Amino acid sequence: MTAKSKSEGPSRKDKDRLDRKTIDAIQDAARKVHGKIEKGQKPEMSFPVRSLQNVHFDKAKGYFEIGRSKKSRTLTVSTVRTFAQTLKMMSLSKDLVETNDFATKRDAYYQSKNCAEAGFHDQAESDTVMDDIEALFSIEGLSREQLRFIPDEHGGAVAGELIVNDPDYATGAVHRIDCTQFGSGAYSIPSLVEHLSFETNAKFVLAIETGGMFQRLQSHRFWEKADCILVSMAGVPTRATRRFVRKLADECRLPVYAFVDCDPYGISNIYRTLKVGSGNAAHVSRFFYVPQARFLGVTPQDIVDYKLPTHPLKEIDVKRAKDALKNDPFFKTYPVWAKALEQQLRMGVRAEQQALAKWGLNYVIEEYLPEKLAKADRFLP
Amino acid sequence: MTAKSKSEGPSRKDKDRLDRKTIDAIQDAARKVHGKIEKGQKPEMSFPVRSLQNVHFDKAKGYFEIGRSKKSRTLTVSTVRTFAQTLKMMSLSKDLVETNDFATKRDAYYQSKNCAEAGFHDQAESDTVMDDIEALFSIEGLSREQLRFIPDEHGGAVAGELIVNDPDYATGAVHRIDCTQFGSGAYSIPSLVEHLSFETNAKFVLAIETGGMFQRLQSHRFWEKADCILVSMAGVPTRATRRFVRKLADECRLPVYAFVDCDPYGISNIYRTLKVGSGNAAHVSRFFYVPQARFLGVTPQDIVDYKLPTHPLKEIDVKRAKDALKNDPFFKTYPVWAKALEQQLRMGVRAEQQALAKWGLNYVIEEYLPEKLAKADRFLP
Repeated sequence: MTAKSKSEGPSRKDKDRLDRKTIDAIQDAARKVHGKIEKGQKPEMSFPVRSLQNVHFDKAKGYFEIGRSKKSRTLTVSTVRTFAQTLKMMSLSKDLVETNDFATKRDAYYQSKNCAEAGFHDQAESDTVMDDIEALFSIEGLSREQLRFIPDEHGGAVAGELIVNDPDYATGAVHRIDCTQFGSGAYSIPSLVEHLSFETNAKFVLAIETGGMFQRLQSHRFWEKADCILVSMAGVPTRATRRFVRKLADECRLPVYAFVDCDPYGISNIYRTLKVGSGNAAHVSRFFYVPQARFLGVTPQDIVDYKLPTHPLKEIDVKRAKDALKNDPFFKTYPVWAKALEQQLRMGVRAEQQALAKWGLNYVIEEYLPEKLAKADRFLP
Repeated sequence: MTAKSKSEGPSRKDKDRLDRKTIDAIQDAARKVHGKIEKGQKPEMSFPVRSLQNVHFDKAKGYFEIGRSKKSRTLTVSTVRTFAQTLKMMSLSKDLVETNDFATKRDAYYQSKNCAEAGFHDQAESDTVMDDIEALFSIEGLSREQLRFIPDEHGGAVAGELIVNDPDYATGAVHRIDCTQFGSGAYSIPSLVEHLSFETNAKFVLAIETGGMFQRLQSHRFWEKADCILVSMAGVPTRATRRFVRKLADECRLPVYAFVDCDPYGISNIYRTLKVGSGNAAHVSRFFYVPQARFLGVTPQDIVDYKLPTHPLKEIDVKRAKDALKNDPFFKTYPVWAKALEQQLRMGVRAEQQALAKWGLNYVIEEYLPEKLAKADRFLP
């Protein structure tokens, strides 16, 4: 494959610079606490408030942004455990950056078991502290991944017109992973993607909700016909999958088309999260949102146009759609989206992407996708 | 990589022979129905009963085997829809084999939407018919995958000392996938694995419960130190993952070591399913069970030996362990397993595989796994 587009990816130097910045930020925060103690004052730390009430959506920026509300934690008898835990967790992050290692939420929780009184009682406790630290450093432009805390979820699968370059900074070797060469299999995205770079001549990324549909398009080499990269999201995409797609879209200037079920879950949970981020993790949306994403389908209008078999909307679907219309800044910003959701509520039905199989198993490849892709400018935003 | 072990994989001829056998079996079943109708008699079909009551476990065979109980379905006014649906589904399978295509359960359900009165009302209905057909043809040694019905689940991830050969029967090209070359990423197992073959010099397969532990072992290239193949199961392994591990273990004569959480779910759901199959799908266990599997850990005794941090057993854990001891033919067959479960019930606690992080994030790589692997002959069966 000869690639038209090629991203550079961070060099060893870029990586070292960012790691230095991370360590400096951690040390600064620790030094402030230390300084106060030296002066005999009560140390305090303040963290952005993480809740929907502290989230803004600015169409121009395109992602859920955390607001200015902060909560302070002053060292007192009642906060001493959490305070110590926060410092311990920051110290773990510093160690991880220095040794170029990483830890999952669970790893971090178990690591604390050696901290006597400062150990976490349960994982909910350690998750809260990790989220606080993540929110704190996100203000400095540092993601949780940069702090070396990785998710424990499986990554999405990728196939098609893409070469992934994965450098091993220790040995200097670069693995060149050609995603056209996996036969019926695929490339599984790692938990950390910051070090990757790309080569591609694809025209777009197709982000697919179900494993079954991904396997159909992969086995029939749809990516070859359509010059594209297939990504299996397997439901709401994991953070690693979202960050991978974002990097790919940014660095190779590719549009991203989402192909999901036509129901409020597919639209407001899967697609909305892919495009602008999730409400309760707004403090990190800037690293994960994919502004290049547009909605290929299945749209409520597709149900009519393609005479798709449907199921009635469930109570939870109706609740989800009404919530989105009333409270979700994303749907309130785009009148065409509000219209589409209202249309679905009026119709009272939903359709899965595999409903296209009514017209033949490969109707999706031969008719539906080519027709839709010919009018990509009409995709919902 | 130079491989010591190499599997041949099915040739185009093998594949054609098996496909011919599948089509013949479908046509035979259809012909019997047709013959009865021609003679003016009521046609009937009989299927193995799929329930735990109709399951045997024979230690020598090593998998959950379906018994002799059958249920008959005679064509009457009340069975006419199901009868027609069964024939339609068999006809779809025949088409899929002939065109070398495949369908998920959902695809099959939606395909029926064009069958007027014989269409399925809901997916539960089509799943039952598919399970019946699968049970029917399993007697002839044909798996659901051979009938070209594939699961809609994501496949597991693989990394390490393995080359997967994936032939494209249409073009004759063979993709040679080197699983040492994925950097921090991995190979994602496709839904159908029958056509794959392998080259390896690994000494064993390590089947891992969590994505986080898999990423740790993969990023630190544990497979290189230990000469092995890493497989991420991400919970209870999917059918594609189990079949992949089984083929690999069979064809390259490799032992399989399971590395899961020490709780009744890890032991009785994940490990038991990997090794002998699941109770309610006993009619297909013979295709999926992995008799080579042995239990590396985490064992209840490991909790003591490695002083692991624990959580109390939940009510569901206790129920699961007691059920396994009382009703599960696998645990009733192996007294050492019954002892281990009883030990866990006595201790009243469980431990996650990531609990080893208490002793350092890479304690698992530097101490735990090498120590355990040196005494592989003592692994639980």
